[in-house]
Formats: sequence, C-alpha cells, structure tokens
Amino acid sequence: MDPEQAHPREGAEVLCVGSELLLGNILNSNVRWLAEALAALGIPHFRQTVVGDNSQRLQEAVREASRRCRLLVTTGGLGPTTDDLTTQAIANCFGQPLELREDVWATITARYRTRGQPIPDSNRKQALLPRGATVIPNPTGTAPGMIWEPQPDFVILTFPGVPTELHAMWRQTAVPWLRQQPYGRGVVMSRILRFWGVSESRLAEAAAADLNQANPTVAPYAGTGEVKLRITACAETGQGAEALIAPTEARLMNLGGSSYYGRDDDSLASVVLNLLMERHQTVATAESCTGGGVAAALTAVPGSSAVVLGGIVAYANAVKHKLLGVAATDLERHGAVSTPVAKAMAAGARHRLGADWGVAVTGVAGPGGGSADKPVGLVVFAVANAQGAVAVTQRFGSSRGRHWIQSVSVGASLDLLRRRLLGLELENAWA
Amino acid sequence: MDPEQAHPREGAEVLCVGSELLLGNILNSNVRWLAEALAALGIPHFRQTVVGDNSQRLQEAVREASRRCRLLVTTGGLGPTTDDLTTQAIANCFGQPLELREDVWATITARYRTRGQPIPDSNRKQALLPRGATVIPNPTGTAPGMIWEPQPDFVILTFPGVPTELHAMWRQTAVPWLRQQPYGRGVVMSRILRFWGVSESRLAEAAAADLNQANPTVAPYAGTGEVKLRITACAETGQGAEALIAPTEARLMNLGGSSYYGRDDDSLASVVLNLLMERHQTVATAESCTGGGVAAALTAVPGSSAVVLGGIVAYANAVKHKLLGVAATDLERHGAVSTPVAKAMAAGARHRLGADWGVAVTGVAGPGGGSADKPVGLVVFAVANAQGAVAVTQRFGSSRGRHWIQSVSVGASLDLLRRRLLGLELENAWA
Repeated sequence: MDPEQAHPREGAEVLCVGSELLLGNILNSNVRWLAEALAALGIPHFRQTVVGDNSQRLQEAVREASRRCRLLVTTGGLGPTTDDLTTQAIANCFGQPLELREDVWATITARYRTRGQPIPDSNRKQALLPRGATVIPNPTGTAPGMIWEPQPDFVILTFPGVPTELHAMWRQTAVPWLRQQPYGRGVVMSRILRFWGVSESRLAEAAAADLNQANPTVAPYAGTGEVKLRITACAETGQGAEALIAPTEARLMNLGGSSYYGRDDDSLASVVLNLLMERHQTVATAESCTGGGVAAALTAVPGSSAVVLGGIVAYANAVKHKLLGVAATDLERHGAVSTPVAKAMAAGARHRLGADWGVAVTGVAGPGGGSADKPVGLVVFAVANAQGAVAVTQRFGSSRGRHWIQSVSVGASLDLLRRRLLGLELENAWA
Repeated sequence: MDPEQAHPREGAEVLCVGSELLLGNILNSNVRWLAEALAALGIPHFRQTVVGDNSQRLQEAVREASRRCRLLVTTGGLGPTTDDLTTQAIANCFGQPLELREDVWATITARYRTRGQPIPDSNRKQALLPRGATVIPNPTGTAPGMIWEPQPDFVILTFPGVPTELHAMWRQTAVPWLRQQPYGRGVVMSRILRFWGVSESRLAEAAAADLNQANPTVAPYAGTGEVKLRITACAETGQGAEALIAPTEARLMNLGGSSYYGRDDDSLASVVLNLLMERHQTVATAESCTGGGVAAALTAVPGSSAVVLGGIVAYANAVKHKLLGVAATDLERHGAVSTPVAKAMAAGARHRLGADWGVAVTGVAGPGGGSADKPVGLVVFAVANAQGAVAVTQRFGSSRGRHWIQSVSVGASLDLLRRRLLGLELENAWA
C-alpha cells in the first residue's frame, strides 16, 4: 500500500514549475506569497513541490498530489513558449484533451491589438484549456489560469510564474472562489505591526510573554531596518479572530512606543504622506547617498503628487552647493557627510522647491569612499521646516553592504520626518 | 505500477523541513542556495519538496524520494526542540534505531563548557544518529548533520535550517565528499543574456530553433520590461561547457540586435555607467513620473559617483519650470507629458548640473491623472547632450498598475540613453 494513501486526502499543496528554480537562478518568492495567502484564507497546506519544465516529472508530481490533497495550486509554465507545458501536462494526467477557448483567445488578441502589435502565433497555446475548466482571467498579462476539478474533490488552480500576474489573479478570482469552498478551517486572521528603530531581539525580548501565546500567535520578523510582529488568530468568524487579536495588538503597540509606526500595508512613506495630507503641507527631498531613493519611495505611493513637490539628488558636492545652496565653507570645513551640510541640504530643498518640509540624507554608502573619521555606513539625516532644521547621525556599519545602507537610509530619513511631524523624540531610546 | 517507478532512480532531490516555510513566514533561501551548489558540482536535481514539522508527512516525503532519486539533501529539523524530528523520522523510514554518538555529544558539551553555560539536556538529542551514518560536523552551531546510505545507492545528507550553518557544513564536508561520488555529470554552466524592448514571445519565436536544443538548453524569462534568455550547458569541464555555450550565445546576441544589452549580472544601469566611464562623461537626471527611480537605479551601482552628478525630481510643474528651466509656455501648450517638455527637462538637467548627458522621464503613472488624450501609461523619455535632445514616446497601458509603469519607465529611460550612447536606433524595430 502506498504510504500516501494511508490517510485521507486533506488540505492543499503548492506545486511550482520552472527549471530556473531547480538551477537556483531565482528565489521562489511565489511559494512564500501563496503560503501566506492560503493561511489568510484558513486553508492548511502541507507540502510544497518544485519540478522543472519536464512534462513527465510534472505529471508525476500532479498525480501524487491528487492522491494526497484536495486542492493543488500551481505556478509557472503557462507562457507561450515550448517549455511552458503545465496545462498540457495536467490535462494528460487525467486523460483530457485541450480545446481552444475562443473567449480567451479574443482577450489575448485584443490586448496585442490595443498595443498596435502583431499577434505571435505562439500565444494561441495560452487559449487552450481542458474541457470543463473555468478561466482565471489575467488582467495584467496574456497567460490565463484555470480552476479545474479533474476528479471528484480534487481541484487544481493554475497561475503564471510572474509574481504581479499571480497576485492580481489570486486576489481577483481565486480568493472569492476559495471563500465559497469548504477548504478553510474557520477564519485565520493576521495583523502586522510595524516598527522602525528597534532591534528584532530587543523587541522579541520585551514581547516574550506574547511570543509564547497559542491563539493568537505572535511572531517577529526583521526587515531592512524594520521589525514586524505578526499576530495571527484563528476563530469561527472574522469578528472572533479580531477580538482575539485586539488586546495583544494594543499591548504590543504600546510596548513599541515611538518605534511603532503602522500596521498591515502601511509603509513609512504612506504614513508620512498621510500625515502631510492631514496638515495640507508639502515636502521636498535632498539626497546624496540614497541617490533618489527617498523621492522614489514617496512617489511610489499613489496620490503622492498632492504633497511631494520633488527633490534634488545632489550626488556631487558642486550640486549640493549650486542647486541646494549649501555653503562651500561648510562643505570644506565639515565635509559632505556632516550635520551642518545635512541641515543646509534639508533647508535648501525646502527653500528651492517652495515646500513646507525638506528632508535630507548624506552619507557614505560604500564600498569605497570611507575614512577612519567618516567610515562606510555613516549617514546623517536632517529635516527642516519654517522653524529650522534638526539632524540625526547614524552608524550602520559596512558589513551589510551598499544596497542595505541605501535602503535603511531611505527608511531612516522617512522615520525622522515622521517623528518630527508627530513631535516624538527624534531617536528611539532603546534602538 | 507507481508512475515514479516507471523510470530508474536518478539525480538528486532537496527536501526542506519546517512549518515556518508552509506558513510563509520566511523565504526558502536554502533551497536556492543548494540548487546553485548542486549545479556547480554538476549534480542534476529534479525536485524540491517542503514539508512541515510533522513526522508522518516527513517520512512519506523521504520514502517517495528514495524511489525516485539517488541523493537526498535535507535541511531543517536538526535542532534540540520537540518540533525538530528529521533524524528520527529518517531512521524510522528505514527501520533503524538511533544511537548516541559519544564523539558528537563530547563536541556539543565542550561547546557549552567553553561558553561557561550549563548544558541543556535537550541537546542530547542532537547526538543521536542511525548506526552507520557519517557525521557532518557543524563548525558554527550545535546541530551536526549526517551522510547516511540506508539502502543501496540511496544516500541522505542532512543539514540544519540555519543558512550560515548549512553553508559552512556544505563547503567543509559535503563538497569534498560529493566530489568523490558518481553523482556529478561534469560541470553545469549557465549564461544569462539580457534584452530590453522586445517581448518574450517575439524573442522566443525568433530563437525557436535554439529553444529546442538539448545541450546547451535555452530558456526565456520575462521580467519588468526585460527579457532574459538563459543558456545552460553541461560538459566534462568548465572549458567544455563554455565551448558549448559560445556559439549559441553569439547567435542569440545577434538575433536580439539592438535589444541585447548585457549578460549575467549586468543591469541597464551598470551598462550605461560603464559606457559613460569609458567616455569619461557625466550624466544628470530629470524625473517626473519615476520620482527619483532613475537616479536611484544609477546610484545603486557601486562607483556610480564617478559619472552621476545628481538629478532633479520635478514632480510639480512649478519645479519643472523653476529648477529645470522648462518654458511655462511649453508646459501650458503641450502639457507636462509631451516631447517638448521631456526634451527641455533633459536639456535642463544637463545644463543645471553641468553634465555631459541629461536623461528625462515624464509620464502618467496613474492610477489617477489620466485623460483621453494623455492616458495612464503614457510616458515620454528624452536624452540630451551638447548636440541636442532626442525623445521617444511609449504607451505602457494602465492594466499593470503604477508600480509596473514606474519600474518599466526607469528601464526604458536607461535603455534610451544606452541606445543614444551606442548610436543605435532609438526604438527597437520589433518591440
């Protein structure tokens, strides 16, 4: 007897298809995203499998899953090229032919037509689905997915491997469909609390009692400069889960003090933009070592044009002087990475762009350019308004590299602006 | 007959153990690392599996692998806590008891003693291994791994889930051991060719003959505006693999024409920076809808300060006029998203920052701000030098959202500069 038949089929599995995953060319971010998405729906999943672009091995993996689980979610292999063979392989497993879906083909051809492009014949393949399958429309690409039940109580959902397409299709079609199905075990609800300027171990120590709770559970995660606490509760209803989360959330928010800045989909940029919108105030940026990253983070948020006037990337010292009005004597005497220069940059951006607030970053991102006095990882942040400028100096060290220093500096500059807007202390006491 | 027994056992598989992977709490970076490490040894692996901290499911996964492959590499579940059950589960699969290995226990206790810490009794478990197993010492942690052949021609290698411990143990013990074994098929080598301004399906059609090759294989991947072709060759030696790759690489590069921009770790930013460095020329940016993303992409590259002077993020029209010198009449007559304004922005950045080149982006990133005349996704790019300015207009559509439009616009602006620097046509003819 096959051991996988020793227990009844249950739960879900995820199957990712792509030789690039076996070759280690890319990180499998899709499987993590799907794991979180399934958990959010209260659907337990017990296995993740990756196979390459090989029809026989793909079919074996699908057949095995059909004996173990009730719901199989696949990613990858839906493209127009010859190594995209997921739909065909799945159909083969259950002895079903593919048929051309005229509605899908019409959508694909329409997309090319609006772009004024000829329609590659290879795309025709993407309109082939097994009979009885329901299309999962792809609002952002040409590869649709499907919902198909090839045998009783075994359903396959297919998605492309392109993350943005997977996410859009999941939210638009899979989530509403899955909510109607009997896969969930009640409601699993998560809340993410976001902190800036505190270490993961410090926060975890302070929250030790909560980390040992059973329902809700609390788990800490460290990001780039950010620490998150995820509270997850399981209950019969959403209200019940919310009631379990609320007291823990209040306690952890309080515990984080001024380092708590938002929850769930908030970002430092969105929080700062909201604070500025409430005050009907505008902001301008002045960046050296972040090279435009602060402005890019702010303008990534839809609607940011209401408060972001723009900014100046002053990478060269001459630009700091000419476009931001930093005094040549300050640059000479204190160096580009210094409190006087950071303050002058923030004030200059504010003044030159006519904004209420100016935020500035100047530092040594490395790998070159460091000195004993001003080592790689030294970054000075400043925020200016009509009342004057404040500055904070941080030493991030060189070990985590240029990209990390730039990313954490973007966050730290936005956090300084947040603290200044809210009248909080400028640095977290227990960072 | 079980389909997985339809072909002889071959190659390797990776099995990762940990409920945190099923909950989506962490990205599975270990499996990618092992995939690259196996490829570097020329050991093909055909499947990756993840199961939670559940003994029964773990045993099933090991039994299944024992019927499919010759080498199974596991990560996770070697710690001292009750949810660490990999070694016990593997031993159970093959009906073998665990025995205390005095040498391992001595190493663990010595480690605690040098730290002056009491020895938790739970660590005793980490000294238990099946008889006949060879220890993989853990130089940086308490959890050792093992090399064990529980049945003829089926070997299991176990590692902890902590990445630094896995890496150290792999390099120190697994690599020398694996080099002595008959799993390798020589050397597997990959080359990534990078293209911009051509669709994946168009490129795949043109490269159809190469996509059907067996050695080297060629596989296409689509990114955000970018398309990659991965060439993978397998040979006895690195030189042999390189010789297999070279003719295919030359053919595909040629086939991509001006859309081919680089290979392996190249990015559009690094390619453009290298071209500027060769010419001892400098660049300044003028950005509206990308909000600093172009400057950030350029300055993300180490050493970019040699050629990037800085830039101006001119989100508000007043900033375009005041800081970039765009004529108010052009803004009124043609609108901010127009060829004259884009050209004036590029020329203005060049002039105001004193750079050889100016690159500008102005467009409608959405979701708001579009009109029938200037819809969301309309973006105008310009590049200016002493000889004047050129501009290109693109319609990216609104369906893929603000973030995608911003990201693809960053790439398109750098590609325009690349084309201008190399004297290529400004737009790819078959985009």
